[in-house]
Amino acid sequence: MREVYVAGIGITSFSRLEFPLSEIAAYPVMMAMKDSGLKDIEHLYVANMGGGRVNHQTGLASAVADTLSLTPSGAELIENGPASGGSAVKQGFMAVASGMHNVVAVTGAERMREVNNLEATDLVATLTHPIAEYIYGVTLPSLAGMFTRLYMDRYGVTDRHLAMVAVKNQRHALRNEFAHIQQEITVEGILDSPEAMTNNPYVAAPLRFFDCCPVSDGGAAVILTSREVAEATGRPLVRLSGVGQASDTHCVHEREDPTELLAVRRAAAGAMEMAGVEPSDVDVAELHDAFTILEIVESEEAGFFPKGEGHLALERGDTELGGRLPINVSGGLKGRGHPVGATGIAQVYEIAHQLRGEAGDRQVEGARVGFTCNFGGFGNNVVCMVLAGE
Amino acid sequence: MREVYVAGIGITSFSRLEFPLSEIAAYPVMMAMKDSGLKDIEHLYVANMGGGRVNHQTGLASAVADTLSLTPSGAELIENGPASGGSAVKQGFMAVASGMHNVVAVTGAERMREVNNLEATDLVATLTHPIAEYIYGVTLPSLAGMFTRLYMDRYGVTDRHLAMVAVKNQRHALRNEFAHIQQEITVEGILDSPEAMTNNPYVAAPLRFFDCCPVSDGGAAVILTSREVAEATGRPLVRLSGVGQASDTHCVHEREDPTELLAVRRAAAGAMEMAGVEPSDVDVAELHDAFTILEIVESEEAGFFPKGEGHLALERGDTELGGRLPINVSGGLKGRGHPVGATGIAQVYEIAHQLRGEAGDRQVEGARVGFTCNFGGFGNNVVCMVLAGE
Repeated sequence: MREVYVAGIGITSFSRLEFPLSEIAAYPVMMAMKDSGLKDIEHLYVANMGGGRVNHQTGLASAVADTLSLTPSGAELIENGPASGGSAVKQGFMAVASGMHNVVAVTGAERMREVNNLEATDLVATLTHPIAEYIYGVTLPSLAGMFTRLYMDRYGVTDRHLAMVAVKNQRHALRNEFAHIQQEITVEGILDSPEAMTNNPYVAAPLRFFDCCPVSDGGAAVILTSREVAEATGRPLVRLSGVGQASDTHCVHEREDPTELLAVRRAAAGAMEMAGVEPSDVDVAELHDAFTILEIVESEEAGFFPKGEGHLALERGDTELGGRLPINVSGGLKGRGHPVGATGIAQVYEIAHQLRGEAGDRQVEGARVGFTCNFGGFGNNVVCMVLAGE
Repeated sequence: MREVYVAGIGITSFSRLEFPLSEIAAYPVMMAMKDSGLKDIEHLYVANMGGGRVNHQTGLASAVADTLSLTPSGAELIENGPASGGSAVKQGFMAVASGMHNVVAVTGAERMREVNNLEATDLVATLTHPIAEYIYGVTLPSLAGMFTRLYMDRYGVTDRHLAMVAVKNQRHALRNEFAHIQQEITVEGILDSPEAMTNNPYVAAPLRFFDCCPVSDGGAAVILTSREVAEATGRPLVRLSGVGQASDTHCVHEREDPTELLAVRRAAAGAMEMAGVEPSDVDVAELHDAFTILEIVESEEAGFFPKGEGHLALERGDTELGGRLPINVSGGLKGRGHPVGATGIAQVYEIAHQLRGEAGDRQVEGARVGFTCNFGGFGNNVVCMVLAGE
C-alpha cells in the first residue's frame, strides 16, 4: 500500500448554519484546497447520515461535486451513523493507498437543526435495531444512561467524574473558534448549585443535560494524497499511518459484558498495529464524547489507561490540555458539537492541526503522534485512526 | 494495485419482498458465501438509497454485518443514488486492490414498495438539485421525457424503438427466475392495440408506462477477493478488470448539449482503459435502462455503436440474446426490476454469471468480456465496470 498523507484541512463553524447541506459540505473542501494549494481533486467522499430524511436530499455527493466544480470527478456518500466521517476517511485512505486516485477530498456534513431536538433524537435512534430495540423506545441517550449506571456500579465512576469531562471539554472549546459551545461551566455550578436541577436536568439518568453533546450543524474536510504530492505542497507533513475498524453486536443487550466496548478496543488496536505505535506513544487524542461517559471508557479501551481507571486519569488532570495525554483539546463532541457526518473528519482535522504545530493557544506542545476514535451506533461500528507528524 | 476477482455472487428475487431491509441485504451475501465457499468476510459494503427515509433505518451496514454474524468486521453504507451499487463495488475493489482487506462482501438492497409509487417517485426526485430542480416539480421521469423528445428530434428515434427495448428486455426477463416482470409484450400490443392508451398510458410524454422500470424490492451481492483466494475456491475465475466513474453537472439544464451523457462516455472509457479493452471486445453488457431511451443512448456513449445509431443496432437485433452484443440479457432494470441500491450489483452478478458460463438458457455463448453501466441521478454520477472471464 502507498503511504497516505493529510495534505489539506478545512472546517466550518459548528452551530446553527443557514446554508444548504451541500454548501456546508462544500465549504470546508474549499478551505482544504486553499490550505494545501491542491485543486485537482480526483475523487470526493461525503460523510452524512440524515440528508435523505431530514434534508430531503439523496445523491448528495454528486451535488457537492458539482458545487465544487469537481466534475467529472466521481463522488460517493458514506454512511456509518456517527462514525460516517471516520468511514469516509477510511475510503479516502484506500483510494490513495491502492493507487486508484492520487488526490481525494473527504468531507462530512450534517444539517440537523432543521428539525427539532425530539426529531433529531428519533433520527439518531434509527441507528438501533429496528425490531429488537427501536420499537421499544430505545434511544441513544437511554442506552448511554443504562451503560453509565453499570459502569458507575462496577468501577466507582460518579456523577462528578462525568461533570469533569463536560467542564474540561467546554473549557477546551473556549480555545476553538469553530466550537459550538462557548460557555465555561464548573462542577459545582452544574451539580451543586440551587439551580442545578433546572439548568442541568436528567436526560437519561444518571446522564444529565451537560453530559450530552449538542445537536449541531457543521462540516469538516480533509484532502488525502500520496507522499510525493503532499511534499510538493510545502505544508508540514502529516501521515495517516493507521486505520482500524471493528463492529460489535447491533443490539447492546447481546453483548457478553455490556460495560466493554470491544469495537473500540479492536479498532484502536488495529489502527495502532498498522501505524506501529503503542498507546503510550500517543501525544494527543480526539475521542467520541457524545456522552461524557464515553470519553472515560474509550480512553481505557484504546489502551491509554487501565480498564476502570479512566476516571482516575481524568481526576489527575492527565487528559486536560497541559496534561500527560490531552483528550478533546478541540472541545470534543461535547464542546465543539456533533454534526454527525462531520464529526469523524473534524477529529482528523484537529489532530492534523496539532501535528502541524498550528493549533495556537490550544497547541499540545511537541505532539508527534495523534489518535482519533469515531464511535458509530452504540459502539457497534467504530473507526480509529493514528496520525503522525514528520 | 492487486488484481481483484469476483469470487461469489448472490441475488434475491426482485419483486415485493416481505422481509426487513437488513434481511434483503444479508440474504444474497449468504448465497455468495455458499457460492464461493468463503466465510471469513473481512469487510462489508452495503449499497442503499432510501433506508433512512423509507425504512426509517440508519446504520444499516452495521445491522447487516450483525445479521450475517460478521462482527467484528467493519461495514459501511454507500449511497450514490441509482449508482449506489456500482459505487459500493468500486469501494470493495479498492479495499482488495489496496491490500487493506482480502475478502470483502458488497451487497445492495432496497425495500421501496413499503411506500406507494408517488412517494417512491418523490424519493427518487430528491436526487435532483434541491433548489434549481426539485422545488419546481422536476422528477426523474420528467427529465427522461424531455431528454427523449430531444433525442427523437435529433436522431430519428421513434416510440417504436423505445417499445422495442421494453419488448426485448421483458422477453429476456422471462429467462431469469429472479426477474420482477414475467410478462411477454409486443410492440403492437403496447402501441397499436385498442387498449394501448389504457394499458400503456403516458407517464412523461413521449415516455409511456412500458418505457419505465418497475419499483422493486430486492438485493444482490458479490464477494471480491485476491486472485490467490479466488483460485482456491475452485470456481471459474472472473476478474473485475476495469472500474471507471465520472460525474456531470447536477442540473441537467446546465449541460452544453443535453443529449450527450458525458459521464457515461467518460466512465465507460475509464473502465475500458483500465481493463485494456476496446468496446468491440465486449461480448455482453448490462446497461441502466431505468427508461427505455437510456439503454439506446448508453449503448452509444459506451462506444458500442456510433452516436445516434443505437436504435438502428436495436432494429437489427444486435442487442438481443443471440445478437452481436446482447444487452440486458438479465432483463435489465426494465424486466429484472430496479431496487435502487441493488441494481449496480445485480449487473455485476449477471456479468459474472455469464462469464462463468453458468447462465443457463440465457447464456451468451463464448462470453469472455462483460461490461456494466450504473447510472446515478440523471447521469450526474456514473460507474462503469469491465469484467473478464479467465
